[in-house]
Amino acid sequence: MNDKKIVIALDAMGGDNAPGEICKGALLACQKYDDIEIILTGDTEKIKPCLESHPRIHIEHASEIIDPDEHPANAIRKKKDSSLRVAMEMVRRGEAQGCVSAGSTGAIVAGGVLVVGRLPGIDRPALGVPIPSVEKTSFMLDVGATVRCKPENLLQFALMGSIYSHKVMKVANPEVKLLSNGTEEIKGDDTVLGARELIEKKNSLNFGGYIEGNEVVAGHADVIVCDGFNGNIALKLGEGIMQSLKGLLTDEVKSSFMAKAGMLLLAPVVKKLWARFNYEQYGGSALLGVNGAVIKAHGRSKSPAVLSAISVARNFIKEDGNELISREL
Amino acid sequence: MNDKKIVIALDAMGGDNAPGEICKGALLACQKYDDIEIILTGDTEKIKPCLESHPRIHIEHASEIIDPDEHPANAIRKKKDSSLRVAMEMVRRGEAQGCVSAGSTGAIVAGGVLVVGRLPGIDRPALGVPIPSVEKTSFMLDVGATVRCKPENLLQFALMGSIYSHKVMKVANPEVKLLSNGTEEIKGDDTVLGARELIEKKNSLNFGGYIEGNEVVAGHADVIVCDGFNGNIALKLGEGIMQSLKGLLTDEVKSSFMAKAGMLLLAPVVKKLWARFNYEQYGGSALLGVNGAVIKAHGRSKSPAVLSAISVARNFIKEDGNELISREL
Repeated sequence: MNDKKIVIALDAMGGDNAPGEICKGALLACQKYDDIEIILTGDTEKIKPCLESHPRIHIEHASEIIDPDEHPANAIRKKKDSSLRVAMEMVRRGEAQGCVSAGSTGAIVAGGVLVVGRLPGIDRPALGVPIPSVEKTSFMLDVGATVRCKPENLLQFALMGSIYSHKVMKVANPEVKLLSNGTEEIKGDDTVLGARELIEKKNSLNFGGYIEGNEVVAGHADVIVCDGFNGNIALKLGEGIMQSLKGLLTDEVKSSFMAKAGMLLLAPVVKKLWARFNYEQYGGSALLGVNGAVIKAHGRSKSPAVLSAISVARNFIKEDGNELISREL
Repeated sequence: MNDKKIVIALDAMGGDNAPGEICKGALLACQKYDDIEIILTGDTEKIKPCLESHPRIHIEHASEIIDPDEHPANAIRKKKDSSLRVAMEMVRRGEAQGCVSAGSTGAIVAGGVLVVGRLPGIDRPALGVPIPSVEKTSFMLDVGATVRCKPENLLQFALMGSIYSHKVMKVANPEVKLLSNGTEEIKGDDTVLGARELIEKKNSLNFGGYIEGNEVVAGHADVIVCDGFNGNIALKLGEGIMQSLKGLLTDEVKSSFMAKAGMLLLAPVVKKLWARFNYEQYGGSALLGVNGAVIKAHGRSKSPAVLSAISVARNFIKEDGNELISREL
């Protein structure tokens, strides 16, 4: 579909900086890419004042907003005119090939399954996220869509992750590893052991065995496969450690003149490291296994992060990601 | 048992710095505490040259060593004259109340179950470890003894962790939380949900609900309960992030004179933070649920860490930790 126009439904009301930064991100995307068209979904009265007009940006009115505190599945079911649901309905009806939202992760996952629908052959979806590491940027899935998995689910995640890494992240022959409690073959619980057996049999996968927690940040894999419970804890733990270190460093530096001076001299290095491990820059996580390109941007996204999430959706669509996944199954 | 002598069997051959640093640690402990007696287990010929003689340090000869690469349970079963098994047999026979080893974690867990034996009423043991955090030092269990758990196991871990936090770490009314993929009550998989129900009913526990990954390092709980699979991944992930940051910082600083100067000025702060999050200083993890005080010192332990692990065993014995656990069950 390289010549066709790509239509992306963009939830204008999701995230901490909606609708202003979302509208700005839409404009940036249309300025950058000639082949996309963006439908902003949400309250027309609120969107219009933020939006610079552009021939390829349109508004689809939606009167409701899903609150981050709402029960995700209930909110998706009941709020039929919410900005997120309206965006997802466009994907379901084929009026858009993808959908981007900075709203509640839970609602996006619920909507992906209930509104957009699963890809034929996929039992459970997975939320995949780029993980910054020392050597490279890995892709980890699932980080929260499917809490507990069967071995078959993990096999499907491995296939989807491998295609995503190759097509969207442009990794040649991505190495896939399973997150486990040790690298020896006897490690893992029954689910992980079962998944290992299934994945080993798939010739299309470049499988590298298990990966341990301490190897995740070292970057010892291109694709890291785990269930949504483990992935969620690992991702949040990493974010928490970085936040805590930043806070402690700031407090400690305040207490000494020498340290303050040192911090000034060291600022470029710290800034560089911080930027590298700042999850927000990584353009959004992908809900894989649903019948469209569904991308979740970080809740605190400003316009560059919105642009980045739109780029990810565009790449996935241009590369026929779902077509490739379906063919593998 | 406050007046009685405390006998601790110490595996002289376990860990990277055995037997030299282990022997030194034994001496430090006997110099610090009047009430302990230490039996070093291992190759007499190798121990003697390292050991300064002390009236309360003895040697129990053991001809074999368990290698870190061996299958833990097989090694414990077959190597009947290994330094670790001989130490654990002393606990089983009641000749020592506790046992300390810097050897393979897997072998210590296997020996705890197969040689020392489980406490009556405990189905599965848990390995607990102090986790440094911003506000306090939390106690996390299980970090690798029981890979997957039933709700009943997690309840038992909560009880054991609470007693350990109170008696050994001296926390008044420790708050216990369950590691989960969110703090809302609807989060968690079936096991965690089931455990939550059981723990809520236990009046003796100060239960605070769920804790998320990002709150672990912030120190939002005194005791963090999880299964051995998640705990192992979380612990190793934290260690890996610290190691990676240290490596990246060192590399970056090398590349600029300004940064080098800044790092010199900042050195005391970085050292302080590093020491705070350096897991090795925390004196050893406790194998709870077995019929004795079984403490695992870090594999890289030098004499102060060996002393620290012995202190932990001594405290647990002095406070009648296992007596209290049995009474709670």
